[in-house]
Amino acid sequence: MTDTNAAREGAFNAAVLAASLIGEHAADIVEILNKLPPPDAAEVVRLLPRETAVEILDKPELDFGAEIIEALPRHVAAPLLAGMSADVAADIVRQLEEPAKTELLGKLDDVSRGAIDGLLAYPENTAGSIMTTEFVSVPSNWTVEQTLAYIRQVERTRETIYAIYVLDQVTRRLAGAVSLRRLISGDPPANIMSLASKPITTFPLVDREDVARLIARHDLLAVPVIDKAGHLLGIVTFDDIIDTIIEENTEDVQKFGGMEAIEEPYLQIGMGDMLRKRGVWLAVLFVSEMLTASVMQHFEGELQKALVLTLFIPLIMSSGGNSGSQATSLLIRALALRDVKLSDWWQVMLRELPTGLLLGAGLGLIGLVRVVMWQKLGIYDYGEHWLLVGVTVAAALVGVVTFGSVVGSMLPFILQRVGFDPASASAPFVATLVDVTGLMIYFSAALLILRGTLL
Amino acid sequence: MTDTNAAREGAFNAAVLAASLIGEHAADIVEILNKLPPPDAAEVVRLLPRETAVEILDKPELDFGAEIIEALPRHVAAPLLAGMSADVAADIVRQLEEPAKTELLGKLDDVSRGAIDGLLAYPENTAGSIMTTEFVSVPSNWTVEQTLAYIRQVERTRETIYAIYVLDQVTRRLAGAVSLRRLISGDPPANIMSLASKPITTFPLVDREDVARLIARHDLLAVPVIDKAGHLLGIVTFDDIIDTIIEENTEDVQKFGGMEAIEEPYLQIGMGDMLRKRGVWLAVLFVSEMLTASVMQHFEGELQKALVLTLFIPLIMSSGGNSGSQATSLLIRALALRDVKLSDWWQVMLRELPTGLLLGAGLGLIGLVRVVMWQKLGIYDYGEHWLLVGVTVAAALVGVVTFGSVVGSMLPFILQRVGFDPASASAPFVATLVDVTGLMIYFSAALLILRGTLL
Repeated sequence: MTDTNAAREGAFNAAVLAASLIGEHAADIVEILNKLPPPDAAEVVRLLPRETAVEILDKPELDFGAEIIEALPRHVAAPLLAGMSADVAADIVRQLEEPAKTELLGKLDDVSRGAIDGLLAYPENTAGSIMTTEFVSVPSNWTVEQTLAYIRQVERTRETIYAIYVLDQVTRRLAGAVSLRRLISGDPPANIMSLASKPITTFPLVDREDVARLIARHDLLAVPVIDKAGHLLGIVTFDDIIDTIIEENTEDVQKFGGMEAIEEPYLQIGMGDMLRKRGVWLAVLFVSEMLTASVMQHFEGELQKALVLTLFIPLIMSSGGNSGSQATSLLIRALALRDVKLSDWWQVMLRELPTGLLLGAGLGLIGLVRVVMWQKLGIYDYGEHWLLVGVTVAAALVGVVTFGSVVGSMLPFILQRVGFDPASASAPFVATLVDVTGLMIYFSAALLILRGTLL
Repeated sequence: MTDTNAAREGAFNAAVLAASLIGEHAADIVEILNKLPPPDAAEVVRLLPRETAVEILDKPELDFGAEIIEALPRHVAAPLLAGMSADVAADIVRQLEEPAKTELLGKLDDVSRGAIDGLLAYPENTAGSIMTTEFVSVPSNWTVEQTLAYIRQVERTRETIYAIYVLDQVTRRLAGAVSLRRLISGDPPANIMSLASKPITTFPLVDREDVARLIARHDLLAVPVIDKAGHLLGIVTFDDIIDTIIEENTEDVQKFGGMEAIEEPYLQIGMGDMLRKRGVWLAVLFVSEMLTASVMQHFEGELQKALVLTLFIPLIMSSGGNSGSQATSLLIRALALRDVKLSDWWQVMLRELPTGLLLGAGLGLIGLVRVVMWQKLGIYDYGEHWLLVGVTVAAALVGVVTFGSVVGSMLPFILQRVGFDPASASAPFVATLVDVTGLMIYFSAALLILRGTLL
């Protein structure tokens, strides 16, 4: 250990910090640990009471769970991992590097390792990957009394006990679900199935966003995940779903902003990672946007004859991009919320077409007024054919805004149709699509209206 | 009734539909009712068993709850309203027109009316407006057994019984909270306070987004809302929070897309409403973007001398807008998730400055390569000073992308600082901000690099 390290570790007193954290809310402790370098955070976790340590590691808000587990001595880390919810533990194990991964899994008891291994098998972002195997299930021949006694006994080791799953005593398939509130109001000697209702279920490979929608739609505390034969594999709980929705939102906003989604908090992203995630898209958009230069080169002759046309290029292009961005954001959410289905694209087109025409006409009018005013007030001289120039600008705006609205609204449909997330449509992407065509619309309008005068 | 109406009502048989809906999940019934005209939906609701009707009206996903309540005979509507969760009922009453509002409130029992009136007093989007008053509370001198017996008795009339709130027997202030899972494992004769923990609480005027953050952070089923004196006013439950988060997301994405947030599902928005919500922003952006025309007019002389410069205007401007949009989307989410605080703006600036410079340099290089290639391959002739033109484009890109990244990242901070939602920053707004300055950067670079040659 170098002197500098020794000095730093001298200044950081893990024992004092750990002692001061006892009794605080887990979420607050997590926030403090997130600010420490992982080795220091690990030292604090080691000194906390085991129950608190497990509770903290269980929080998905903990940024460096894997690093902390890795930094702890294996004989300390293994029981913590075993104590955690299987779904969060599996998440951490997924991030571990070798040899830590194998060493730690080797130190786990068979039950914990089995649960974690099972979850690791499911791809990320599926119901299987976020479900927990710590649920309460009872056979269908039990009574209400038996079930309550069993719950009291296992309560501490289950993530939720608010939904109790009843398995057929012979086939072991999911036969029903009983909420704890119905259970405690039930008649003690009654059969548990007399209180059960048919649960809403999902499958392990279902996208976690669809599970979130299911839970939000039916106001569920948890949704059971079953295999094709109807056996209960695990449950997804409402708190995991809240985290999922927040994470997906962040991804959606970032993607809409025109970049690859970033998982880490802003101030913790590595510079290289951030440059890559922003740079790749920026470069792709840049190269596509180069087509605008080609279009301009193509119309160079017209530009030379009527330089006045260039003055309005940024204005017209940005209006197309803006109307496209509005339409895209509307349809991304409409598709995400299932307000609109893929098959509704035609109805959407029928709404966007008049919307675009009217919005374009409004902007066109403002544009025309501007040209007339500047000319009449002597602020700028648009030349002999100034009125025709104004009409060209107005006509181009109608075309460009209509085109922007239609393309912007159709893009999410097209993406979903070819199997992408409609939320991958970004404002910059729409703007780029609209820019090239927008220029062509502008120059075409000019050729039509100004031929024989300026052109 | 006109013949057409009679024919339509003949075709629509509410009784048959209502009968077929019995036993379906409430969420599925809601989906079907959302597709019917409100008077027809009301007719179906009237024919459903009362318990089912209440459950359906309780779903925030029901689009025309207020219209349905209004279309029902008052003597049918009043008991339904009384049976609903007070928070959803208050939401519906808020949307009712007079005289329906006063008539209905007059027909309610005192307890229900009191609860609804109390909630109506809180402004929209606050904890008070989304909380329910149907919680379970018990005095602090009760035993576990007494509490359990009480819960069994009131269970049907409470929105959630998974958290039980203990009020001080003398002051009636909130003294603690007990989860149902702890309660059922408790020793029956023990005092209820022996199981209670200090609850995480909020106040009625707190923004619902902050309540959502609190619930997500601590994985709560519900958070109690108290007044300054510590009296329990109501609770906000996790399912309301999930709905809140989803709604806020939709608003954020739409605002980021550059429009006012729209509450109704896309296909149900009135044309006038949509035109207004999109048109206002589009016009504001358009008028601001007119500054680009002014900048171009200012540099008209330069443009005439070096028309080649106009070819790259769209390319350079869009790159600035894109990098700005990326930075804004990153910071909007970072601020919303509290990854970054207002006081961190300086640190963010220190990250965005080099990020922008490096990204700009990357794009600049691509731009320069494009000019060199087109020239050398004979695709286009940029004139005698083609290399200097390429260098101008590259230099402008470095400046514009850096400016875009910095402005885009600072905008959410500025909005938050002056009291707006940082999520009001939109991609089109950033693009507009960056466009005007971007043009000035480009022309300044040109004046600097091309003076004495082209200019």
